[in-house]
Amino acid sequence: MMQGRFIALEGGEGAGKSTQARLLADALRERGLEVVTTREPGGTPGAEAIRALLLNGVEGDQGESWNPRAEALLFAAARSDHVHRLIRPALARGAWVICDRYLDSSRAYQGGGSGLSDADIGLLHQIGSEGLLPDLALLVEVSPEVAVQRLSLRDTDGSDRIGGRNSAYHARVASAFSAFATSEPERFARIDGNGDPASTHALVLAALEALLTGDA
Amino acid sequence: MMQGRFIALEGGEGAGKSTQARLLADALRERGLEVVTTREPGGTPGAEAIRALLLNGVEGDQGESWNPRAEALLFAAARSDHVHRLIRPALARGAWVICDRYLDSSRAYQGGGSGLSDADIGLLHQIGSEGLLPDLALLVEVSPEVAVQRLSLRDTDGSDRIGGRNSAYHARVASAFSAFATSEPERFARIDGNGDPASTHALVLAALEALLTGDA
Repeated sequence: MMQGRFIALEGGEGAGKSTQARLLADALRERGLEVVTTREPGGTPGAEAIRALLLNGVEGDQGESWNPRAEALLFAAARSDHVHRLIRPALARGAWVICDRYLDSSRAYQGGGSGLSDADIGLLHQIGSEGLLPDLALLVEVSPEVAVQRLSLRDTDGSDRIGGRNSAYHARVASAFSAFATSEPERFARIDGNGDPASTHALVLAALEALLTGDA
Repeated sequence: MMQGRFIALEGGEGAGKSTQARLLADALRERGLEVVTTREPGGTPGAEAIRALLLNGVEGDQGESWNPRAEALLFAAARSDHVHRLIRPALARGAWVICDRYLDSSRAYQGGGSGLSDADIGLLHQIGSEGLLPDLALLVEVSPEVAVQRLSLRDTDGSDRIGGRNSAYHARVASAFSAFATSEPERFARIDGNGDPASTHALVLAALEALLTGDA
């Protein structure tokens, strides 16, 4: 049986990743493919339990958040569970896995945003998940204005522990993503996400053309 | 102000570590020292929340346990929080910290017991806690018969996810501890824990003589 394909959607808040993940999953299913959609942090009961610790904090901690090193370890632990129980088994049976955020989000948010080294994040991923990488990371990029506008339409106050950080933090994150895509062009496809969902979706399908026709 | 001292109690289940930690704390307090007693995994609200995930599992996971890589990452995350919020601040203000299990338990249980490499455990500790080690690790050793007898007196069924593993697993753990103490004699004091608590306590105080008199 053919090994499945692993596609990650990456980018900052408000880029439209979740919408594009849904549209891509529908398009692949219409082609008769088995598709597993998932997200990080989370995707399995264990990883979702870790996600809750990361995003909501801990009872009794008096509002203190995790130090950057503990946070990076928790993300790597959630990813390890996710890879071990969901992603690898799905790929092994030939499914396409579409994941909303994966390793490069850890690199951009914990590495670029919080001062932990990119090499450390890579080591944690090697130890936790034996270094599993997507076949392609789709980096959905939007202007800061578009991101702010989309975030303002969401039904949340944006104050969870990751999304609620300041704009300088998010600018560092966007710059980190951009640097990854520049230095590893074979692993990334950059998607202009400023347009409407349908036109962005067309760009996503074009980026996946080689994988869909089996040429990659 | 003088930097405090950091003492870890290590060893298998039923060795009497918790009893010895309590007796040691009392003895140090009688000498007028500030003493902080703590344990791993746990010791802070964040680390205790991770401990609950490790020992009790996760709702919805249908009894599956963590894979060894995720488990090692969770232990390292709990330790990072513990070191960052409790141990380092206590040492900085001059307290003695007595910790029931620390890094060498991760090495023995996750490394020796589950197949993850000792080098990987060391890397996780470096990344998570910048490699903080105790001034002295007290390895409390008992015969398998004594350990079994003491465990049988406890008011639990011994079936948590770590303690409930089989006897071959625990034998590998004991052998791993012994190997650590042999290869790093300057970092360990081996304590014969087969006697009654008072006589074992006397051995503990003797092992700490140099630290207590300021000669180490």
